[in-house]
Amino acid sequence: MHWARFRSSDGRIGFGTVEGEYIAEYEGDMFGASLPANRSLARGEYILISPCLPSKIVALWNNFGALSLKLGKPAPAHPLFLIKPATSVIGPGDEIRRPAGYAGKIAYEGELGIVIAKRCKEVHPDHAGDYIFGYTCVNDVTAAAVLNENVDFAQWCRSKGYDTFGCLGPVIATGLDWRSLRVVTRLDGVERQNYPLSDMTMSPQDLVSRLSHDMTLLPGDVIACGTSIGVGSIKDGSAVEVTIEGIGSLVNVLSGSAN
Amino acid sequence: MHWARFRSSDGRIGFGTVEGEYIAEYEGDMFGASLPANRSLARGEYILISPCLPSKIVALWNNFGALSLKLGKPAPAHPLFLIKPATSVIGPGDEIRRPAGYAGKIAYEGELGIVIAKRCKEVHPDHAGDYIFGYTCVNDVTAAAVLNENVDFAQWCRSKGYDTFGCLGPVIATGLDWRSLRVVTRLDGVERQNYPLSDMTMSPQDLVSRLSHDMTLLPGDVIACGTSIGVGSIKDGSAVEVTIEGIGSLVNVLSGSAN
Repeated sequence: MHWARFRSSDGRIGFGTVEGEYIAEYEGDMFGASLPANRSLARGEYILISPCLPSKIVALWNNFGALSLKLGKPAPAHPLFLIKPATSVIGPGDEIRRPAGYAGKIAYEGELGIVIAKRCKEVHPDHAGDYIFGYTCVNDVTAAAVLNENVDFAQWCRSKGYDTFGCLGPVIATGLDWRSLRVVTRLDGVERQNYPLSDMTMSPQDLVSRLSHDMTLLPGDVIACGTSIGVGSIKDGSAVEVTIEGIGSLVNVLSGSAN
Repeated sequence: MHWARFRSSDGRIGFGTVEGEYIAEYEGDMFGASLPANRSLARGEYILISPCLPSKIVALWNNFGALSLKLGKPAPAHPLFLIKPATSVIGPGDEIRRPAGYAGKIAYEGELGIVIAKRCKEVHPDHAGDYIFGYTCVNDVTAAAVLNENVDFAQWCRSKGYDTFGCLGPVIATGLDWRSLRVVTRLDGVERQNYPLSDMTMSPQDLVSRLSHDMTLLPGDVIACGTSIGVGSIKDGSAVEVTIEGIGSLVNVLSGSAN
């Protein structure tokens, strides 16, 4: 199933499943009790918006073998992460906005996102799958020059936490076998990342279990699984497209700041 | 005024102003439209809970002159911060819980907390005061051994993000002149920190303005202004009391983990 949130052409926000070009609308709570609303929206009657509204994005660093090798850093024994705030989230088609007064490099990172199904605290890896609602595409945007601007303190939360820097979508796919899939990132149509999810150091189930020992994960929270090689810079006006087979393509354009 | 949230002895959650030993209850939204409910709760009819439910705590590092000097690090030109998630928040009297499986040092940090009044994005320092609802006490708890466990990545969010590691309260004081106040932290009644807020590198107004350029701040969000010298370790069973004149005393006990 492909779950999505939408804004209808008359301004209503709702959710449902994507069936070809239609959305079959549901009522209730995507992560709780929901029922088909027996209404559908045809192409042109809606746009997709961020498929969930996480209270936080837990964003990983150094979770792929090929990137570890390139960085010359050992794979970590426990997920290394920062938190991107809820205010960073945008959906498919939304503009990434250059922060006011920042003229430096802005980087894309195509990633798999795990969407949490239900309140999750200290779960065993064998049960962690029960807490995964599904998977989405993530573009973990970074103001690269901010990250190491201060020599005493790596500014992970600041450089990755700006409004519009947490791109999610286009849908949440359930029942996906992530092991066989690849993350493909295109910049203005040119492939820049194409890496297998099987190269992840820690599997989604392992990540959910371990992170649920660090903090309670809430329904709709997103774990951004970290990126692999091929990260690069986005020019103002360029489009980043993150594609994962079985989920779809998430496209966002970087707009220059008005400032 | 001293704004507080409470749980009544019959289990109801509400908010109001503290008037001596009474709470004058309000209806509505603490950060929006609210009106006196013409009800009050007497001592014994309520306990105070976290005075707000931030979507995030923006927690600063190295924001006091005396600490900068001790660390031998220059004062930063822009706030250096991590994000503590909403799930880390507890209120006055709540137990700090040792993370399961973690036997290392747990540190207290007494701090001033700025509580945001309204949605705040890219505000000028001259107007930042309008976005400050008031001030509260913060104990920014840290699993110290986690912070530098990995040599390649300082784990700020993980070491400070555990459930119960964001102690807030007891109330939010409005109309406070922070310049004249001191933060006093006592461990089992023994004074361990006593530092003047006038030693802050960046003022609350400057912090709100600068951070509002990094991300949108939401009503009830908390900026933990960073600590100064005197940080130390909490033993299991010990009580930490953070006191700021005009706000009150926030007391939390560290309970050992069941694991």
